[in-house]
Amino acid sequence: MQRIVRYTGSGSEETTDVLVEEAPVEFRLGGVPIAVLMRTPGDDENLALGFALTEGIVLHRGEIRGVRLVEGDNQGDRYEILLADDVRIDPEQFRRNLYTSSSCGVCGKASIDAVRVAARAVPEGPAMPASVLHRLPATMQPSQELFSANGSIHAAAAFTPAGDLVAIAEDVGRHNAVDKLVGNLSRDRWPLTDLVLMVSGRLSFEMVQKAAVAGIPIIAGISGASSLAVDLGEEFGMTVIGFLSENRFNVYCGDSRII
Amino acid sequence: MQRIVRYTGSGSEETTDVLVEEAPVEFRLGGVPIAVLMRTPGDDENLALGFALTEGIVLHRGEIRGVRLVEGDNQGDRYEILLADDVRIDPEQFRRNLYTSSSCGVCGKASIDAVRVAARAVPEGPAMPASVLHRLPATMQPSQELFSANGSIHAAAAFTPAGDLVAIAEDVGRHNAVDKLVGNLSRDRWPLTDLVLMVSGRLSFEMVQKAAVAGIPIIAGISGASSLAVDLGEEFGMTVIGFLSENRFNVYCGDSRII
Repeated sequence: MQRIVRYTGSGSEETTDVLVEEAPVEFRLGGVPIAVLMRTPGDDENLALGFALTEGIVLHRGEIRGVRLVEGDNQGDRYEILLADDVRIDPEQFRRNLYTSSSCGVCGKASIDAVRVAARAVPEGPAMPASVLHRLPATMQPSQELFSANGSIHAAAAFTPAGDLVAIAEDVGRHNAVDKLVGNLSRDRWPLTDLVLMVSGRLSFEMVQKAAVAGIPIIAGISGASSLAVDLGEEFGMTVIGFLSENRFNVYCGDSRII
Repeated sequence: MQRIVRYTGSGSEETTDVLVEEAPVEFRLGGVPIAVLMRTPGDDENLALGFALTEGIVLHRGEIRGVRLVEGDNQGDRYEILLADDVRIDPEQFRRNLYTSSSCGVCGKASIDAVRVAARAVPEGPAMPASVLHRLPATMQPSQELFSANGSIHAAAAFTPAGDLVAIAEDVGRHNAVDKLVGNLSRDRWPLTDLVLMVSGRLSFEMVQKAAVAGIPIIAGISGASSLAVDLGEEFGMTVIGFLSENRFNVYCGDSRII
């Protein structure tokens, strides 16, 4: 259970919320790590099987003998994919091919420790009135040009603490929208310590990580935040806000920035 | 513009729709490819800048001199990130670290050509009544246990063509939900040619790719499909359905499987 502060337009109250769990898992082939995914723990053997099949690492089900938990540190977060006796696959082949994508980025680094290297401490300010936060979705919407055209694309927008729209970006990938926005803003200023980031979807670890590295102190999403996203936000002294609408929002951490 | 067939509960009509564009882009450092992302084309220089910054490839804005289009094939889909004169980075360092994630998978392979190797031709059948399709979201919902708890998680479910739920999986990552589901089903049968896949979100290239590799002929989503997702579905003779609800859905390709 995560302690949160819930704002309802008429006031706020401390309460608790269940966050979706998010944690890295590593898959190995012949002892060699071939992929690190951010996933919701549980059903991991099926995830390993399905990943190996749908990514074409094996060609059919019979090429896999099983999936075995790797003992040791991070118990439960490392699995060996066991190939059938007559199957020979060079793990390096997949290690090289499985690059990053529209929504992963940090996965290879796969831990808060790794983010710590790249991220800066965000400043104590700025503070932001709750009433301004409630207005952000309505302010963002008219600028979502691609969304208006097809209703199926992510947006990331930067606002001043007074609620003025600074810039917006859209992309089929949530993380790309943030990167396009950050890239655009970086041309004039760096780090982006005086801005508020709002995204159209969920707040996963990688979204908060990107904000942290850019020095953005406040990040808000239309949907909820994952457990690891809130852990990261707390560690870096950020304000993480979910389920933002004109009627409500939840503050997972950093409530002192909300007036 | 994509030709689609729109079903409204009372009938169907051929019409057109604007799909969100999705295509791979490659970023290089010193001529070495370090990442392939699936993105919406446009704003690519900002994407390269933001990606290099938020992934910690460079530590601040001043380390990047600019972003230059690489001439040649795939014009507009390859960019060189130019470092400032005094900055030395070993591209291999990032090439190794940028693994796959909860939602990328194919990006390293990054083309329909590559999927062609792993995917099988899906069978001509099965056929499915439109009335059964309209019911799938309501059938899936009671089984979304994690979604009920926190409202912020993706689901993937397999149905028979008669609309019976076979299995369901949930995960913070859309692609993980599909992999967990496929892994589970692969224990009993392979390929999964007699099933319908339904997902809680958008249909991106990678989602359709995973269905294609698993041999699943019909894939449906609550939200829309990207351009590349439909291209892939058409190429493999699949049925791709978007905006599925009890009142409507859009068939992007493979309408012959709908009765």
